[in-house]
Amino acid sequence: MAKVIFGVDLGGTTVKMGLFDLTGNVQEKWEIPTRKENNGEQILPDIADSVRAKMAEKGLKSGDVAGVGIGVPGPVDASGVIHKAANLGWGVFSIREKLSGLLGGIRVEAGNDANVAALGEMWKGGGQGHDDLVAVTLGTGVGGGIIVDGKILTGATGAGGEIGHIHIEDNETESCGCGNKGCLEQYASATGVVRLANRRLAKDDAPSKLRGGEISAKTVFDAVKEGDAVAIEIAKEFGHYLAKGLAAVACVVNPEVFVIGGGVSKAGEILFDFVRDEYKRYVFHGSRDTKFVLATLGNDAGIYGAAKLVLSE
Amino acid sequence: MAKVIFGVDLGGTTVKMGLFDLTGNVQEKWEIPTRKENNGEQILPDIADSVRAKMAEKGLKSGDVAGVGIGVPGPVDASGVIHKAANLGWGVFSIREKLSGLLGGIRVEAGNDANVAALGEMWKGGGQGHDDLVAVTLGTGVGGGIIVDGKILTGATGAGGEIGHIHIEDNETESCGCGNKGCLEQYASATGVVRLANRRLAKDDAPSKLRGGEISAKTVFDAVKEGDAVAIEIAKEFGHYLAKGLAAVACVVNPEVFVIGGGVSKAGEILFDFVRDEYKRYVFHGSRDTKFVLATLGNDAGIYGAAKLVLSE
Repeated sequence: MAKVIFGVDLGGTTVKMGLFDLTGNVQEKWEIPTRKENNGEQILPDIADSVRAKMAEKGLKSGDVAGVGIGVPGPVDASGVIHKAANLGWGVFSIREKLSGLLGGIRVEAGNDANVAALGEMWKGGGQGHDDLVAVTLGTGVGGGIIVDGKILTGATGAGGEIGHIHIEDNETESCGCGNKGCLEQYASATGVVRLANRRLAKDDAPSKLRGGEISAKTVFDAVKEGDAVAIEIAKEFGHYLAKGLAAVACVVNPEVFVIGGGVSKAGEILFDFVRDEYKRYVFHGSRDTKFVLATLGNDAGIYGAAKLVLSE
Repeated sequence: MAKVIFGVDLGGTTVKMGLFDLTGNVQEKWEIPTRKENNGEQILPDIADSVRAKMAEKGLKSGDVAGVGIGVPGPVDASGVIHKAANLGWGVFSIREKLSGLLGGIRVEAGNDANVAALGEMWKGGGQGHDDLVAVTLGTGVGGGIIVDGKILTGATGAGGEIGHIHIEDNETESCGCGNKGCLEQYASATGVVRLANRRLAKDDAPSKLRGGEISAKTVFDAVKEGDAVAIEIAKEFGHYLAKGLAAVACVVNPEVFVIGGGVSKAGEILFDFVRDEYKRYVFHGSRDTKFVLATLGNDAGIYGAAKLVLSE
């Protein structure tokens, strides 16, 4: 009888790893560096070595391991094949087969990192008790993970849940990282909030605590909490765009709840004051009552979701 | 051993019905009127009577019927409960239980009509061979049906696939039927095309075959085929809006294919000339190669999909 699962969250600089029991209690967490040289050829061997070392340390045999789940920063299809991860130097290959081979046949399940984090939030985080949810990560970019009936919506080519690239502004002149103009990510990510703030501050000389200091999503929402009028304008604009994007998402998948995480979400519940009313304005009435909650697992969502991948398949 | 399925497509004026074998060959099709008086209380009894009459005519016993599937114009959740169908006068109740009760316990499966039609197109129509598709009906409104991994995406409250109400235009002054402003349906439905045409024609005196005659989606696309410059402008605007809406849908669910049906789609493949390039402009690169095909079942998509509901559950 298997008794443990490994959950792996592969990031651009660090690989987060967790050892879980079968009910989802994390027993140990650790990290190894992500070695990207030579098109990332050492990444999976490093992960396999770390899993084997932990198994040896704990006296675990192959039969004790239900499987290894892994979240990867790139599109992963339903069969566990990655379709290029530029950030790692990876092309197209089966993560499931390759990592399983390196682990002597231990079962491996793989998914896109944002999707896997969504599964983690459903299982043990802000989305507990919900089967139909959309997890939104407001970080450097805007990531999305869509869970339908308890399962990740992968999409035909692993590009399901790429909600950061929904077009929501016709009048944008700058390009998004993806090459398009007017993507949700350009307004609702941490960098998007900074862009909105700089644009607003340049518009006139209205007094604001934000002038002269460092501008970040944190300083903007801190100023909002202190009643800064300019910061509140910026937060309203942020909320307007995020609401428009999430209203479009709801017209498609009609989730029970949006689970909002990532750096911007550290502002807390106040964020929702700027999103809820605008959301109701833009969404179809059948989705007007969708709930908004904060993600609770932070950087651990990925390892939880990766472990859950093994139990879900 | 069961040998037949009934597929029922409940519309606002007519109930379409079909008798199918288990492989999806339709053996007979017929219609009965939709009696909406007294909050539509006669509708399900009428359907049950018609099913029983057909069973008697064919010498079928209850055990010969695998089930009755029904598509309904309103949100139906995964348990077969309708959440109000204003058009029929219906409130909230279990269609599955009520109709099954009227049929002496024969199994009933129910779904939203647009979703059910999508399932039909996947099974026997333009979407054959695809498990992940979005069916788009460009009729009086814009309906959507989303199929993920071969199953209807119902949504938490039955409002999945309401893609006609994605907000795509900030500068709209008229209201959509749903109460919002700038919904996809206001531009890409048959009535939307007429609106776009009237607006364009009123703008200046540019010569066009459309002037003085009846304006409909058909006359617009007929004029496009004859090279009418104003009609081509209208079609481009239509294509721009539809592309923007479908790009948003693809960023969420990343389908293999869009199956386009409804009255506007009678224009044929020429429609796609106005959609494809704009779609690629707005969509995330991971979904850039999504295919566009025409629906092929026409008004029969609903009865096919309803029959397939029985086989899918």
